[in-house]
Amino acid sequence: MNVTIVGATGEAGLSIIDALSSSSNEFKLTAFVRPASINKLEVGQIKNKGVSVVPINLESNHEGLVKALAGQDVVISCLVPFTTGPEIALATAAKEAGIKRFVPSAFGPPCPPAGVMLLRELKENIINHVKKVYLPYTIIDVGLWYQVSLPPLPSGKIDYALKFPATVVAEDGSHATSVTDLRDVGKYVAKIITDERTLNKYVFAYNEVWTQEEIHSHLEKVSGEKIPRNLMPTKDIEATIADAQVKYDASDKSLPFIFGLAGPQYLYCEWFRQDNLPEPAKYLGYLSTKDLYPNFEPIKYVDYVDEVVQGKGKSIYADR
Amino acid sequence: MNVTIVGATGEAGLSIIDALSSSSNEFKLTAFVRPASINKLEVGQIKNKGVSVVPINLESNHEGLVKALAGQDVVISCLVPFTTGPEIALATAAKEAGIKRFVPSAFGPPCPPAGVMLLRELKENIINHVKKVYLPYTIIDVGLWYQVSLPPLPSGKIDYALKFPATVVAEDGSHATSVTDLRDVGKYVAKIITDERTLNKYVFAYNEVWTQEEIHSHLEKVSGEKIPRNLMPTKDIEATIADAQVKYDASDKSLPFIFGLAGPQYLYCEWFRQDNLPEPAKYLGYLSTKDLYPNFEPIKYVDYVDEVVQGKGKSIYADR
Repeated sequence: MNVTIVGATGEAGLSIIDALSSSSNEFKLTAFVRPASINKLEVGQIKNKGVSVVPINLESNHEGLVKALAGQDVVISCLVPFTTGPEIALATAAKEAGIKRFVPSAFGPPCPPAGVMLLRELKENIINHVKKVYLPYTIIDVGLWYQVSLPPLPSGKIDYALKFPATVVAEDGSHATSVTDLRDVGKYVAKIITDERTLNKYVFAYNEVWTQEEIHSHLEKVSGEKIPRNLMPTKDIEATIADAQVKYDASDKSLPFIFGLAGPQYLYCEWFRQDNLPEPAKYLGYLSTKDLYPNFEPIKYVDYVDEVVQGKGKSIYADR
Repeated sequence: MNVTIVGATGEAGLSIIDALSSSSNEFKLTAFVRPASINKLEVGQIKNKGVSVVPINLESNHEGLVKALAGQDVVISCLVPFTTGPEIALATAAKEAGIKRFVPSAFGPPCPPAGVMLLRELKENIINHVKKVYLPYTIIDVGLWYQVSLPPLPSGKIDYALKFPATVVAEDGSHATSVTDLRDVGKYVAKIITDERTLNKYVFAYNEVWTQEEIHSHLEKVSGEKIPRNLMPTKDIEATIADAQVKYDASDKSLPFIFGLAGPQYLYCEWFRQDNLPEPAKYLGYLSTKDLYPNFEPIKYVDYVDEVVQGKGKSIYADR
């Protein structure tokens, strides 16, 4: 199976390349990389895993893209969700090239299509384009990554692994969310893209469900430290989002304003509204990896926490 | 089962009331009607079928709506799709009233969510709101109504039944679409709203698939008249839509501009793009009534054509 990955140097892309390049299935991997990024460290790492790297621009390059996609079976986008133009151009070319399955950039929490998260709405614009041209697709969401789920310890001893520490507790901590190890994302993708049952479907891949209080208590037990709970009522996060929305609407929609809005919206979706749970995902039309692959053995959350506390964790976006 | 129908005096609403009021299932029917419409002829007809009519405004009346919906199991909207505010207000109240299934106004062709039909996009805004508040729902689309599928005869003899004659033939007439008798719409709805398999799903209810050439040939055979084919290439309908889009964008979005755009877009969706077929519907996530209800016997298209040619047809929107 010929698989092209676009946006391969992000965290989701690297997890997918790791899994596909070490899978027993026969994946022949290609990565599309912007010509400007061709000398990046991560691109060299990808090449070392046997991936063919193709320097190519996505926009204003329709014929070139169609040609570069010839003979590919699956295209996986791990592009950043801050803009839609490049991925829409990729989908248009994928349709013309006869791609058998397009996996748009998702790999986040299940979320209603509109009115909750700006980044979801941008992704929906791409999904809607995919559907308009009847490009075969699979949407894969994976919940909250383990790697961004932990609060910091007062001693600072796990700060090395927490690029985005989880410092806010929704309400009284009793709210739950679905968590998945980033290293399992690629393994799920390897199963999903070779599974006819998931064609033209949404799939929710997740490892475990934890409340915030359970996460705090468990980390306290493992670390021996007492962690303060920074409780926040729903009305406060809603006020923060409303404020960020006003600033975003009045802005040039550049990255700082997108981040300003997307940050609290992620918290709102994942912890306050609790969209990121198996039942809401089912309501929203997702198949579940628990039903599809009952024998899959994901990395346990308690094992991840042990790693981090023992100093063996790894920060995401470490080199950037 | 307590069922409230909103927009009950439209064609879809009347079909649904006919079917539910004569069904062997126990439906207790209520119709919400604008206070200004309470003395309309159709409202009297609805009352005669045993429907409780409640005069009520949908907008700026949240508490009143919640109260009026108390104890209802299913809410079916047949509101016109030219605006979203009233139906969004209805959905919000339905969520608060604990409605077990909300059927948004659809009853048209399956269609990608964006970029094809303005009226679909308006409906999607409502569906997105329904999903945001996790209101249990079923989307029911029914394809092209028999009642708007026939071309006129040169003699004018079937004009009495054709409120919207089908005067344009896409390309060479070989394109197909799915057709459904308006009188069957309500019968499908009666089955679907009592079926747990359709909860939080999209359902495509259709009777038969015909090409435009087959429709013309059949009508010629039954009527004995020769019907000219008004062939139109795809580029012409696309140019018409582009022109209507410019006018709509520059307009006050009032009904004449909506109709100017929606008219050619319906043709484009149903006959040129061929969105309105079982396979695209499946791709778009719809269940099919052919799978759900294999023993259902819909009105045959040839019988409908016989009725019309024999002068026994009935125009839709006849009294308006």
